[in-house]
Amino acid sequence: MGWMTWQRFRCQIDCKEYPNDCINENLIKRTADKLVLNGWRDLGYKYVIIDDCWPARKRDSKTNELVPDPDRFPNGMKNVGQYLHSKNLLFGIYLDYGTLTCEGYPGSMNYLELDARSIAEWKVDYVKMDGCYSLPNFQPEGYENFSRLLNTTGRPMVLSCSYPAYISWINNIKLIDWNRLKKNCNLWRVLGDIQDSWSSVVSIINAYKIRNDILPKVAGPGHWNDPDTLLLGNYGLSNDQKRVHFGMWCMFAAPLLISADMDNMDGFSVSLLRNAHLLAIDQDKGGHQAEFVKSRDGVQFWIRQLDGDPIGWAIACFYTIDGGGPIHLFTSLHEFISQAYMITGEHFELIDVFTGVKFNEVKLNETFKIVINPSGIMMYRVKTVDENPGWLRELFPPS
Amino acid sequence: MGWMTWQRFRCQIDCKEYPNDCINENLIKRTADKLVLNGWRDLGYKYVIIDDCWPARKRDSKTNELVPDPDRFPNGMKNVGQYLHSKNLLFGIYLDYGTLTCEGYPGSMNYLELDARSIAEWKVDYVKMDGCYSLPNFQPEGYENFSRLLNTTGRPMVLSCSYPAYISWINNIKLIDWNRLKKNCNLWRVLGDIQDSWSSVVSIINAYKIRNDILPKVAGPGHWNDPDTLLLGNYGLSNDQKRVHFGMWCMFAAPLLISADMDNMDGFSVSLLRNAHLLAIDQDKGGHQAEFVKSRDGVQFWIRQLDGDPIGWAIACFYTIDGGGPIHLFTSLHEFISQAYMITGEHFELIDVFTGVKFNEVKLNETFKIVINPSGIMMYRVKTVDENPGWLRELFPPS
Repeated sequence: MGWMTWQRFRCQIDCKEYPNDCINENLIKRTADKLVLNGWRDLGYKYVIIDDCWPARKRDSKTNELVPDPDRFPNGMKNVGQYLHSKNLLFGIYLDYGTLTCEGYPGSMNYLELDARSIAEWKVDYVKMDGCYSLPNFQPEGYENFSRLLNTTGRPMVLSCSYPAYISWINNIKLIDWNRLKKNCNLWRVLGDIQDSWSSVVSIINAYKIRNDILPKVAGPGHWNDPDTLLLGNYGLSNDQKRVHFGMWCMFAAPLLISADMDNMDGFSVSLLRNAHLLAIDQDKGGHQAEFVKSRDGVQFWIRQLDGDPIGWAIACFYTIDGGGPIHLFTSLHEFISQAYMITGEHFELIDVFTGVKFNEVKLNETFKIVINPSGIMMYRVKTVDENPGWLRELFPPS
Repeated sequence: MGWMTWQRFRCQIDCKEYPNDCINENLIKRTADKLVLNGWRDLGYKYVIIDDCWPARKRDSKTNELVPDPDRFPNGMKNVGQYLHSKNLLFGIYLDYGTLTCEGYPGSMNYLELDARSIAEWKVDYVKMDGCYSLPNFQPEGYENFSRLLNTTGRPMVLSCSYPAYISWINNIKLIDWNRLKKNCNLWRVLGDIQDSWSSVVSIINAYKIRNDILPKVAGPGHWNDPDTLLLGNYGLSNDQKRVHFGMWCMFAAPLLISADMDNMDGFSVSLLRNAHLLAIDQDKGGHQAEFVKSRDGVQFWIRQLDGDPIGWAIACFYTIDGGGPIHLFTSLHEFISQAYMITGEHFELIDVFTGVKFNEVKLNETFKIVINPSGIMMYRVKTVDENPGWLRELFPPS
């Protein structure tokens, strides 16, 4: 959880014309201040990550080290790290495995060890390693190499790998060595960049749906699929679409990285991003990624198991139709049982995670009705209310 | 201007499960009440139009007349018309030129004269003639025939023709006889149905852009291009996107037909739909449809001439990029001059139509800066503030 520059601030380096929108020390520091002041940090949004366009155009001519742009980061990156750490925030930065970054700044090719040492010295906590200007075939080995070099620095850092996004694996999951990926990367970008539009959000959800056979299996604590940053607080989503986006990202156990101007966010986005039920689902200690169960009547059914307090499940119904009015969907919990996630027990309580209000109490096969808006979602936290629930009986069978 | 069922209420005929969302007398009457109560009518939203799915499944077995569904319109269509007229509203209804309506209700093929007489008797003021289940090649003649039959009834009715939407004319404008269309139809659907999503809105704007060579030329008082109903008050657009949608529809001199639940609209949509500056532009007596001028830096430039008080122009800048932050666009009025719409004069005042606030006062070639959000728009009403403006000098040349 945290905040990242790319989606909202891109490669804006014109600080004269765009003083509030450019990638510079001020942006990072004012964001850090806001994360602390408004309690975002204490909700878990701790990583502050600078994406592309922070370095100078050339490496240091003597040491070959990466150096930050002197006008935009006049006090250097170590200073930025110190500032963030002084606020109990964590410091993330961007590198690129290729000869250049995606925006044409110096890449880490041939300088992996040097760059690993630089960022360790700057007390970086999280590094996004992008893949522009490198050959996808060499990325798995290259990232593995970089992962080892990071460990050599002695400083623990989260490694976010971009390489799956550079390999068109969606039609052939064998193009990725998922075990190697899990071993070397703490999270990895599954797909290309998100854009600030509903069609982009839908394409990502549908990719998770299509690759339901592999993505939930490879995710877990320490090794996560990353569907990319959150769009909330920006320009391209309606309120219903924001609910779908954030709700599904929580179902996906996604790293929740905001990419917005923290000083200018709409209230609806703010309250979603701070919703305790949704955050608890995303951050559930089990780290189980949601499975796609089925589609019916234009509704996608999803479920994930929750190991946290209370033990149970999160279920989501995403109504994909973009037209007309709300659908009245009749379903039962039984319809949400997936390959990996069995629902056991007799009586269940459903909490509407968006409102926090108890929605219903049902048996496994009991029909209940959900009303869902077009391009909207309903999402519930489900727990057993049996005195001796099924999972308890399994753990402690009656003697 | 008015309200129409299709986009929001589709063919919902299950009034038991969806009492507030189904096509029935109650929906029409409660909408009419709201249009009057909240002053929508007095702003110009006068037409209340029932789209598909109002008839019974079969024509009257004796007279062959279309009859409304007896459960959903128990008092008949004449009663609906009376109710609307008693509120000083206007009554619109849907027919289909083919053998069936799009949703499978009885079509008007072979019954054109009878149906024209029926709706005249019901005191209909507006008829949408759809084109499902008919051959596109025969539509131009068929609609012409129906237009004559409507005139024969002696009751003046607006005729909305769907047929251009059934002919793939976008790559070949010669497939449409535009003069015949203008002569027979008061408005016509240019494209397929709008959906409640940003991608749908963008595709319509881009079609107007691509066919800038023909669409502005054929539009004018009594014969309008119809880009389809408004999505405001529904689920699929962000606030910035709502501004683009409504702003561009006003630039297009579109018939402003709301398709939403008038009892459940978000405040942002309401204030856009009631914005006096935007309504004045849409309804300008000149009826000049906007021309696309150019694209630059991801921004589309549009202009239309205004003959109303004050004489002048409306200009719009639509920032098409869906990502990043606002663009700072430097431009001048000179950049908006189009083939049909010359800007004449020396000094100009620009009013931001969304806020009503004076934005700037400039000369024709003077550079000014506009800040536009991603998937956003800025739109200005422009008038000369010269004592002897150019257009006046042309009309009354100094002797």
